[in-house]
Amino acid sequence: MINIAVLGYGTVGSGVVKVINDNHDIVNRHAGQEVNVKYVLDLRDFPDDPIREKLVHDFRPIVEDEDVKVVVEVMGGVEPAYTFAKQAINAGKHVCTSNKELVAAKGAELLRLARANKVNFFFEASVGGGIPIIRPLMSSVTADDINEITGILNGTTNYILSKMENEGADFESVLKDAQEKGYAERNPEADVEGYDACRKIAILSSLASGKQVDYEDIYTEGITKITESDFKYAKELKRTIKLLGVSKNVDGTIYAMVAPFMIKEDHPLAWVNGVFNAILVNGNMLDDVLFYGQGAGKEATASAVVSDVIECCKNLKHNVPIIWDYDKCQLGDFGTAKHKFFVRIKGDDLDVMDKIDSIFGKVFYVKCADIKGESAFVTEEITEKDFVEKINKIGDMLSYIRVK
Amino acid sequence: MINIAVLGYGTVGSGVVKVINDNHDIVNRHAGQEVNVKYVLDLRDFPDDPIREKLVHDFRPIVEDEDVKVVVEVMGGVEPAYTFAKQAINAGKHVCTSNKELVAAKGAELLRLARANKVNFFFEASVGGGIPIIRPLMSSVTADDINEITGILNGTTNYILSKMENEGADFESVLKDAQEKGYAERNPEADVEGYDACRKIAILSSLASGKQVDYEDIYTEGITKITESDFKYAKELKRTIKLLGVSKNVDGTIYAMVAPFMIKEDHPLAWVNGVFNAILVNGNMLDDVLFYGQGAGKEATASAVVSDVIECCKNLKHNVPIIWDYDKCQLGDFGTAKHKFFVRIKGDDLDVMDKIDSIFGKVFYVKCADIKGESAFVTEEITEKDFVEKINKIGDMLSYIRVK
Repeated sequence: MINIAVLGYGTVGSGVVKVINDNHDIVNRHAGQEVNVKYVLDLRDFPDDPIREKLVHDFRPIVEDEDVKVVVEVMGGVEPAYTFAKQAINAGKHVCTSNKELVAAKGAELLRLARANKVNFFFEASVGGGIPIIRPLMSSVTADDINEITGILNGTTNYILSKMENEGADFESVLKDAQEKGYAERNPEADVEGYDACRKIAILSSLASGKQVDYEDIYTEGITKITESDFKYAKELKRTIKLLGVSKNVDGTIYAMVAPFMIKEDHPLAWVNGVFNAILVNGNMLDDVLFYGQGAGKEATASAVVSDVIECCKNLKHNVPIIWDYDKCQLGDFGTAKHKFFVRIKGDDLDVMDKIDSIFGKVFYVKCADIKGESAFVTEEITEKDFVEKINKIGDMLSYIRVK
Repeated sequence: MINIAVLGYGTVGSGVVKVINDNHDIVNRHAGQEVNVKYVLDLRDFPDDPIREKLVHDFRPIVEDEDVKVVVEVMGGVEPAYTFAKQAINAGKHVCTSNKELVAAKGAELLRLARANKVNFFFEASVGGGIPIIRPLMSSVTADDINEITGILNGTTNYILSKMENEGADFESVLKDAQEKGYAERNPEADVEGYDACRKIAILSSLASGKQVDYEDIYTEGITKITESDFKYAKELKRTIKLLGVSKNVDGTIYAMVAPFMIKEDHPLAWVNGVFNAILVNGNMLDDVLFYGQGAGKEATASAVVSDVIECCKNLKHNVPIIWDYDKCQLGDFGTAKHKFFVRIKGDDLDVMDKIDSIFGKVFYVKCADIKGESAFVTEEITEKDFVEKINKIGDMLSYIRVK
């Protein structure tokens, strides 16, 4: 029997207990022994939940109990998760977490500490919720030079964009609906501004490069400016709009960003709708490989956490190598990254077209029967820096979206 | 440095050598040491290839060389692959293979032998080519009760079906084109009759159930009877036609089959076109998880094999548990499996419709503007046994396809 402690009895924490209880036989068979939840740490009380018998309010009994071999950290946030994870690892315990803030900020350090203590620090659920992506990247996509990772990494924004597209609805009303359904937080900033996706692409970039990619260095743009009109134009261009986290390796330099993109209808990420997530990995030998599933949700995320616990059980005396060094990865200058841009500007007369042509040179004009009084076009591939200069010159811009 | 031997210098074998050479630094970094190809076994000579220096025509020097820690078997077929794999494992060497015939027939036995010898028997490339699926199933989807695995497991047939759909072409001409392009074998039987997909769903079923699923027990139907007309009707039904390997767990009993299915346009497998493969796994906690990539091809398949070699390097003294016992898994009676069926029969007058209604009861009729002289309909969900009885009664059947 192996004893574990679960830190945090919120959505994911209660999911972990549920998965271990409901799938008892399967979990134990894969773990090679019985997995037993010995403690649950939470500041709250749960008088009507059977978990009350295992509930503690203090981390000390857990860290001091030599019977506890695996600590599951599902509280979220950097502190006190970081302090607890460090103490657990120093006490010779394995740590599994679903906490993207913790992993993005302290992943390299906790991995090194785990290595030194001959235990494991696993974080499958920190990216893509239930989607197997971290372990496949570290144990399956290992013979490839990774050219690019492109992901729909946030279910809330994908739900909103899918609904805007399917129902021709505007951002504000769909956001409100998502909040009522519990798909979006009361304060939706972390999702809709792309901050959540940013931490996830930072983690994936760190794993792909083997170095520390700081999320603060990643250019991040959310979906709050996307409109119904944008989707109409996208349709004309046989494209859809998705919020993508992108990490590209160009001759050894990593370029990372989060932004909405227009992608072709037959792009491997175009069909991913609703709260689902997907991650497309392009390797120099494998070509495209895609991983798809529920990016959030109690049971799916908890299942990924429990799969980490099972891997700990299979490697109790064995540090499974995960290459992610302290060395900072100097990202490529975002200003030099090249994209095509879809642009809408006010006015649709000849003067406007002359201005567009004189500033942007060759562009591809898009017409949409029921949108008047504006001009829309797609530029050739230009650098981000060039684009900003040109757009400042042209004035009267209504919106822009990068095009893949 | 770790020395490996590659058995077979065909497409995959030369790919393995290429991946190890071209991605030298990446492979060695993940393996934690230099991976060196010490021998290549092939009956042929390759006088103009640098590999000639490592070429041997006999397995004995390999199995007797204690320096060789990993044997890569990429010859295909059960013999002599089976004998070589057994000898290698008994000599304390790890074995990695891309050989689905070997794995489907002898997987359980070789896994047991590897466990006894404290080495590993890995076979990532045997299903889905370059797609990470075996290791994710064994190390990521481990906290779930797997309800169903559904896969597009054969690139040749998916290429043919995609092209038939996109170009309105018939089976024979597309097959000829596929043969000219090298996507289909001169003798295409193993692909187009579903035998290849059958071995792969047998392997996946064995891993999901933990028991031996014999491929001979799996009902298998190919794509040779699919016509242009079927695709026209599918379009009317907002569906496409895919050859699927299906393994379903109904209250603990596994039902497995390979057959063409009409699936909805928004089904997670519907967008998978050309030579790509994809595997959809449905778990009781994860819900749908999908793995997509190149199902064949020299580099992609070789990359998966080399990722197995890397895992051997990381677990040189450690058998990574893969649960697949000798016990035979008694599949559920195929006759009792329930499906909806799309059926075309000769004639389109009132008598024919009366006959259909009297035999099948409630059906959904499908019309296709440019197809005359026949009636097409979709049945309610009925058992396979019932379907055969009814279809024998009705006579004059042109074709049928199961509908999801």
